[in-house]
Amino acid sequence: MDKFKRTERIAAITRLLVESPNRLFTLTRFCDKFSTAKSTMSEDISIIADAMHKHGLGEIQTLPGAAGGVRFRPSMSRKQAYEEVEAISQVLCDPQRVLAGGFLYWSDVLSSPDIARKMGCIIAGEYYDAKADFVLTMETKGIPVALMTAEALGIPLIIARRSSKVYEGSAVNINYVTARGGIETMALARRAVKLGQKALIVDDFIRGGGTSRGMISLMAEFNVEVVGLAFVLAEDNPPDRHISGEKSLMLFTESKDGHMHVRPAQWLREKRVDGTDE
Amino acid sequence: MDKFKRTERIAAITRLLVESPNRLFTLTRFCDKFSTAKSTMSEDISIIADAMHKHGLGEIQTLPGAAGGVRFRPSMSRKQAYEEVEAISQVLCDPQRVLAGGFLYWSDVLSSPDIARKMGCIIAGEYYDAKADFVLTMETKGIPVALMTAEALGIPLIIARRSSKVYEGSAVNINYVTARGGIETMALARRAVKLGQKALIVDDFIRGGGTSRGMISLMAEFNVEVVGLAFVLAEDNPPDRHISGEKSLMLFTESKDGHMHVRPAQWLREKRVDGTDE
Repeated sequence: MDKFKRTERIAAITRLLVESPNRLFTLTRFCDKFSTAKSTMSEDISIIADAMHKHGLGEIQTLPGAAGGVRFRPSMSRKQAYEEVEAISQVLCDPQRVLAGGFLYWSDVLSSPDIARKMGCIIAGEYYDAKADFVLTMETKGIPVALMTAEALGIPLIIARRSSKVYEGSAVNINYVTARGGIETMALARRAVKLGQKALIVDDFIRGGGTSRGMISLMAEFNVEVVGLAFVLAEDNPPDRHISGEKSLMLFTESKDGHMHVRPAQWLREKRVDGTDE
Repeated sequence: MDKFKRTERIAAITRLLVESPNRLFTLTRFCDKFSTAKSTMSEDISIIADAMHKHGLGEIQTLPGAAGGVRFRPSMSRKQAYEEVEAISQVLCDPQRVLAGGFLYWSDVLSSPDIARKMGCIIAGEYYDAKADFVLTMETKGIPVALMTAEALGIPLIIARRSSKVYEGSAVNINYVTARGGIETMALARRAVKLGQKALIVDDFIRGGGTSRGMISLMAEFNVEVVGLAFVLAEDNPPDRHISGEKSLMLFTESKDGHMHVRPAQWLREKRVDGTDE
């Protein structure tokens, strides 16, 4: 007789899978923990997988073979993602968010755990196949979304600093030119990254792309390949960005009278090519 | 007949509760979503609650009455918390982490999503009753743990900056004296906080307490009460900290030969006074 009831196992396994996204658990591990046969455990997993899929709560994937197992990916369908991003866009369109100088106040949105988690989950959903070793962001405002993206992908987050700190040891410093023509510095501890790794860059905002080009140069210094660039908000059709292949969740345009319009990016309306989007 | 099977409901409800920590869901909401009677739903919830409790995966609480409902708190027992913190302490005790100047390299640990989540969960467990309206941290290194704490408590995160930024609008700036005798600035946008709210301060590190006193002064400017102070790592027995009631997960001592020793704080070994710790 089984030591635990199926309902109890399902609740506990759902929690265990969900709290460690994209991590592969062997079936044996769950069988040992709950003293069940493999066939019983497979049925449990398949019930959880069906429930998650049916209610749009993420995907449970079972990988066969010796190196196989089961993992949870908190991805959303493009339709869900579009709706979430549209709701955030509407919050940002509030005219009271426009500050003197035409800046948009949105720190509260970027550091909301709930919103950061949703945005991180949507970004992660686009990069599972890119097999990044870590997420790179530049301090400060993009950290919450970058952290949630890293968690969903099951990889570390690395934060580049505006200047090298004594308490981070020897560092690589690079200079880059901002959209406004200024020269800024970016620094990363030598030991933060290993040569030959792959990076996914996640940041809050892209206008001229100066900071992004800086992050790409920084990664080149470490011989790290940038496998993706994702942003929360991007200026629509900026001149001379010289960055390609980036994905932004939202685009903004500024009208001549200082009104800011934010809308979800077009790619969120398109079905995924790999057909994982039903 | 029920539209969904119990096993399916349990998987889906577990996921829904777990992804929104400390948020109260009405039973009616789940009954509507899964087309079940209240009595059936109560049984589902009670099965999930038992499974979470029994396997140390957090607590499901049911609150009676018109304003009641069900919520998930990802708290750990003190025993689990102690074990997790001890494992992190051991990672930090690695002599290779000691940099020139006696600094400890631990940025990688602080921004690991998995470790940040665990530490945030342990800190949150100590402050559910404090009823903070938001978590306050000072950029940069404490942001991941502060974000995870805020998520576990179901409240926003607010990030104080080293200087006021044009893109955050009018700000309150304060100066504070650091342990090394320097004068630093801290800034927070006026619109980030409402008068009369309650703050839980979460930061990575406390030595002399200069930054913490700065954050407390900053909150006083907003007429905000500080209901708790939590740190990941604290210097053991520093002179003149002038801060009281803070909780740190780990303490460090530096021996004369430059060796750094990190260990879990003593309070993690003590049972909780409210008896929620069995």
